[in-house]
Amino acid sequence: MTYTPKTEEIDRLYEKLRTEAAAGGYNLNPDEEFTRDLVESLLVNTHRYGYQACPCRLAEGEREKDLDILCPCDYRDPDLDEFGACYCALYVSDEIASGEKEVEPIPERRPAKEMRDRSRERAKGRRGGENDPVSPTHPITQSPIAHLPYPVWRCPVCGYLCARVHPPEKCPVCKADKDRFEPFP
Amino acid sequence: MTYTPKTEEIDRLYEKLRTEAAAGGYNLNPDEEFTRDLVESLLVNTHRYGYQACPCRLAEGEREKDLDILCPCDYRDPDLDEFGACYCALYVSDEIASGEKEVEPIPERRPAKEMRDRSRERAKGRRGGENDPVSPTHPITQSPIAHLPYPVWRCPVCGYLCARVHPPEKCPVCKADKDRFEPFP
Amino acid sequence: MTYTPKTEEIDRLYEKLRTEAAAGGYNLNPDEEFTRDLVESLLVNTHRYGYQACPCRLAEGEREKDLDILCPCDYRDPDLDEFGACYCALYVSDEIASGEKEVEPIPERRPAKEMRDRSRERAKGRRGGENDPVSPTHPITQSPIAHLPYPVWRCPVCGYLCARVHPPEKCPVCKADKDRFEPFP
Repeated sequence: MTYTPKTEEIDRLYEKLRTEAAAGGYNLNPDEEFTRDLVESLLVNTHRYGYQACPCRLAEGEREKDLDILCPCDYRDPDLDEFGACYCALYVSDEIASGEKEVEPIPERRPAKEMRDRSRERAKGRRGGENDPVSPTHPITQSPIAHLPYPVWRCPVCGYLCARVHPPEKCPVCKADKDRFEPFP
Repeated sequence: MTYTPKTEEIDRLYEKLRTEAAAGGYNLNPDEEFTRDLVESLLVNTHRYGYQACPCRLAEGEREKDLDILCPCDYRDPDLDEFGACYCALYVSDEIASGEKEVEPIPERRPAKEMRDRSRERAKGRRGGENDPVSPTHPITQSPIAHLPYPVWRCPVCGYLCARVHPPEKCPVCKADKDRFEPFP
Repeated sequence: MTYTPKTEEIDRLYEKLRTEAAAGGYNLNPDEEFTRDLVESLLVNTHRYGYQACPCRLAEGEREKDLDILCPCDYRDPDLDEFGACYCALYVSDEIASGEKEVEPIPERRPAKEMRDRSRERAKGRRGGENDPVSPTHPITQSPIAHLPYPVWRCPVCGYLCARVHPPEKCPVCKADKDRFEPFP
């Protein structure tokens, strides 16, 4: 029998995601019906796989292999940056949230399975074994795009630092806009 | 005809700024009438210029030239650090928020226009042109004070990192106080 | 006469700590009675010492010497990481918060007084004197464990950076889980 999340569960997760998005300077899609459907799929995936896999992609079913598509996925922010929306359009830019722009189809940025498997193997090699003094308690699987050389950005207001291809839409601490960020150092 | 923001607009922005300030470890001025006047000026400036220019300074009217005085401005945190309040006294320290100390006049920390123009030119040169692989989608104009060598501070509780002249009043993640921060590395 | 915090004071601090914990990806102990007792002790300590010293440790009574045990203490996150709870069990992991696991006794991770005094002296030496151009306005006493070489972790979703022995349970910005973090660079 299929699992159907209760309305209250959908309400709760929807509210949690909305609050967290706002606090970090992100926006959920303002189309509430559309967004609640995605939230429902997230609950179904959590029930099926044990983790919150992306509602618009086919999960492999092993957490380690799907880490990059746990929602929010590794591709959300590059997609927000380039297209104003993530692959599912669960997260959207200010322009789309305010209705100035419409969502357009987002191409799949996730590398093909073979590429991902190879990146994961390479990352394990680079990170050393169990004797590595900084290896965390839980195994860490490096993102398929982690080998890119990320620049560090600094918020000129509060000094927040982050390492990503482009600066964030808004500083998560003081909400300064993207075009105020500067490369660091 | 002059633009006059509606009471609900002022309420909304006031509430948003208060919530964001608290979440990041900052305080709005507790004098509600005074603060609402500043919030109203922010709305007037947003309407006039298309961006939230500082209510206490003369904007040039071009976003790129006023990036350093979008509110919160690049000078807020150094002023909070040295004087316990930003130039407008919209943001204040814990001591002033709690009434232990009074706001004193804050000298203007923004460099003169000629200096700013020169810094901006220099920063563009340093950052390279359109072929720069990490140049962001939106043009980035470096802050007039960005050439200072910012030290990096680490919160000893949660490991939060930021690059600024002095540590923040409170860690935006775990609210640890300024005097607990340590230089990194 | 002993100081007894009022119920409203306890309510207020309890609510503040709960909100801040959630915003940063942390959990207070869900046992409300137990947690409110700790919150009451925090208020008693703040009244006695002038700072929010750990409710389960003996404070020296000088802020500079107790910086590492201001709550949340410097040891919270390593203890959460290793035991799923801080020394007092005021902060707990998701597993314990959800009832999947029980709190077990947490050994004291704070170095002995002699060690702390020596670390503090060493840190002062390393940081230079008043002429140091980056020394903050307020004196900074380095944490007893600050000499450890902290690795930097990067959230693969939002690029958040932090320096700590292990990655945080959740990214404070986008709530990505610990096992998604990657070493940086």
